[in-house]
Amino acid sequence: MRSPDRPPGTTASGVRESMRDRLGDEGVAVATVVAVEGSGYRRPGARMVVDPEGTHRGSVTAGCLEESVRDIAARVVTDGDPRLERFDLRDDAVEGWGLGLGCNGVIDVLVEPLDASFGPALAELEATRPVTVLTAVGSTDPAVDAGDRTTLTGAGRVSPGRDPLPEAVADAAERRLDGTDADVAARLSVGTDAGEVDVFANRLVPTPTLLVFGGQADADPVASLALRAGFRVRVATARGGRADDGRFPDAVDVRSTHPAEVADAVDAPAYTYAVVMSHNFVDDRLAVAALLDTDVPYVGVMGPRERFRDLRESMDRTLDAADRDRIAAPCGLDLGGDDPAAIGFSVVSEVVAVHNGRAGGRLTDLEGPIHDRSEVP
Amino acid sequence: MRSPDRPPGTTASGVRESMRDRLGDEGVAVATVVAVEGSGYRRPGARMVVDPEGTHRGSVTAGCLEESVRDIAARVVTDGDPRLERFDLRDDAVEGWGLGLGCNGVIDVLVEPLDASFGPALAELEATRPVTVLTAVGSTDPAVDAGDRTTLTGAGRVSPGRDPLPEAVADAAERRLDGTDADVAARLSVGTDAGEVDVFANRLVPTPTLLVFGGQADADPVASLALRAGFRVRVATARGGRADDGRFPDAVDVRSTHPAEVADAVDAPAYTYAVVMSHNFVDDRLAVAALLDTDVPYVGVMGPRERFRDLRESMDRTLDAADRDRIAAPCGLDLGGDDPAAIGFSVVSEVVAVHNGRAGGRLTDLEGPIHDRSEVP
Repeated sequence: MRSPDRPPGTTASGVRESMRDRLGDEGVAVATVVAVEGSGYRRPGARMVVDPEGTHRGSVTAGCLEESVRDIAARVVTDGDPRLERFDLRDDAVEGWGLGLGCNGVIDVLVEPLDASFGPALAELEATRPVTVLTAVGSTDPAVDAGDRTTLTGAGRVSPGRDPLPEAVADAAERRLDGTDADVAARLSVGTDAGEVDVFANRLVPTPTLLVFGGQADADPVASLALRAGFRVRVATARGGRADDGRFPDAVDVRSTHPAEVADAVDAPAYTYAVVMSHNFVDDRLAVAALLDTDVPYVGVMGPRERFRDLRESMDRTLDAADRDRIAAPCGLDLGGDDPAAIGFSVVSEVVAVHNGRAGGRLTDLEGPIHDRSEVP
Repeated sequence: MRSPDRPPGTTASGVRESMRDRLGDEGVAVATVVAVEGSGYRRPGARMVVDPEGTHRGSVTAGCLEESVRDIAARVVTDGDPRLERFDLRDDAVEGWGLGLGCNGVIDVLVEPLDASFGPALAELEATRPVTVLTAVGSTDPAVDAGDRTTLTGAGRVSPGRDPLPEAVADAAERRLDGTDADVAARLSVGTDAGEVDVFANRLVPTPTLLVFGGQADADPVASLALRAGFRVRVATARGGRADDGRFPDAVDVRSTHPAEVADAVDAPAYTYAVVMSHNFVDDRLAVAALLDTDVPYVGVMGPRERFRDLRESMDRTLDAADRDRIAAPCGLDLGGDDPAAIGFSVVSEVVAVHNGRAGGRLTDLEGPIHDRSEVP
């Protein structure tokens, strides 16, 4: 088993990894943004882990609230009780914007001990399965307390370490999230016979994987930048024993394959983005065909568009509309530059954009909000 | 003087730094792509440095020719004579594309000892001044040999360590490049009384700088990704002594400033891209105003567009069309995601795109060639 570099704490996957590492340790807290009104840097679902020494990994704002949250975390791990804290950063507004703190808006943060209740979600994600965590963050029903939690796994509902939500509340929340296949962090109000339960419903999909097919020198920055963007990295090389020479310290898996068998390197197709960059025409063609036979949502092909046209025309299969939607050729965003670093940024930025359903143009040229609104479908 | 992390060898700035480090050392060679016909991974002007041990930094292809170039480099440093090598990768084409090497096209590579003739260009770039290097790569004029070189500096023409080009040839090349303010790598044929001289004309602009105004936690990935993209990084923080706590190992300069004096941190305005991200409304406004008074080509402002509208409306100055062209607000490419890593990719990718005259967006959605053609204006 290789020991890859850790994804940085500036990514959701890095925070998840910290949670897995520290699960069961005494004195560790997790803070989660459960709602933002107005302008916040992070969206609901943003998390940070605070350890007993007060150091933290991840963030809930751009640095405005982390110190306050650390103080709350210290109390929460002492009491053992989850706590919902509201930060109203509009109070110190100057001309409508926070002067001292530099954030604006009202941010609700749930601070909890990193207890066994997180176990099932972390295990599902580690096994590359999506999972939904339902947590009461407030309730007028005396039978429900803040922190009550039910985790919806593929194998059923579980609630280790915490009281479960009433079945009817979990049913209602599950129905509202039905059919989503992306991260969702939403706040739902669900009525019971005895009151209303305020539920933070968090659908989490596994950390996405970037699979690089190709082992030339230009694969290095793609792999290392992908880790920094929060992806799990896998590398499949063809025609050459460069699989195990330590060149890809950022990858969880490096293997030498026949290009027609590159799909063997795909362990979680729904969450895998593949970049085909062997620079060998025949190998690339075989790999593209093999990848299209899987359910990967993205197959990026490096090289000029004329090359891809030739590649497509010489394939045994005809590409249908669904295939063409998944293929990016030439892969990458239009950043210019020709050195491997620029190409790495181009490719990894496109994969981030596609993963988030975006098109990668300049925000200054667009209309509308920067962030998606976290809405229940 | 801080000792920042080195820009990686996958960037032009990393290769320049290697050349500066090794200038004057025995047995070091430089290989430069001087022309590409057909499809090549790297464009003219791509360089690699080969040291006497045969290790190299930088690249001339995606890994197809580096080994051959190393062998040539060994001969060149022994003979002392520059050598132009043509690689015709179409010869082994299968279905029109290289099977074995995976590159396609005809690539001319100039391999030279890293001698004193490189000194003036490296010194000019280090002093953040643009420079033009004219090198004969072929000649039917018996008075001119391959490798003859004239460097056009702000202070005049110099030719240490090599024979200069005839004045008339340098005059003609200089006229052809007049008015360019970007990297240009072009091959020109210039007639003399006694024949034709084939000149590789390389206009080089200084390594671009990314200036971060702001010192909260989200500045870290912006700084570290910018270094990986080949930028020099400077950080200016306001209101707080976080300037010297080692948080920005990737920066050549970290200072605490008053926001109205942020321009003091701009040492090469024409090549500086500024990102304003203090998260403090008043500080950001002061910094934007101060930066617009310099000649920086890009002022990115982090935060939602409504915040920038308020910021603009409360400024003492009116923004004219030239100001608005330089401002990106919200800064960054539309990649989605809200964690500091995703925002770092968004911002740095935009700066790379703007530096290269591109608009972001997905290459697969565009028409036309990926690379700019290197043409003399």
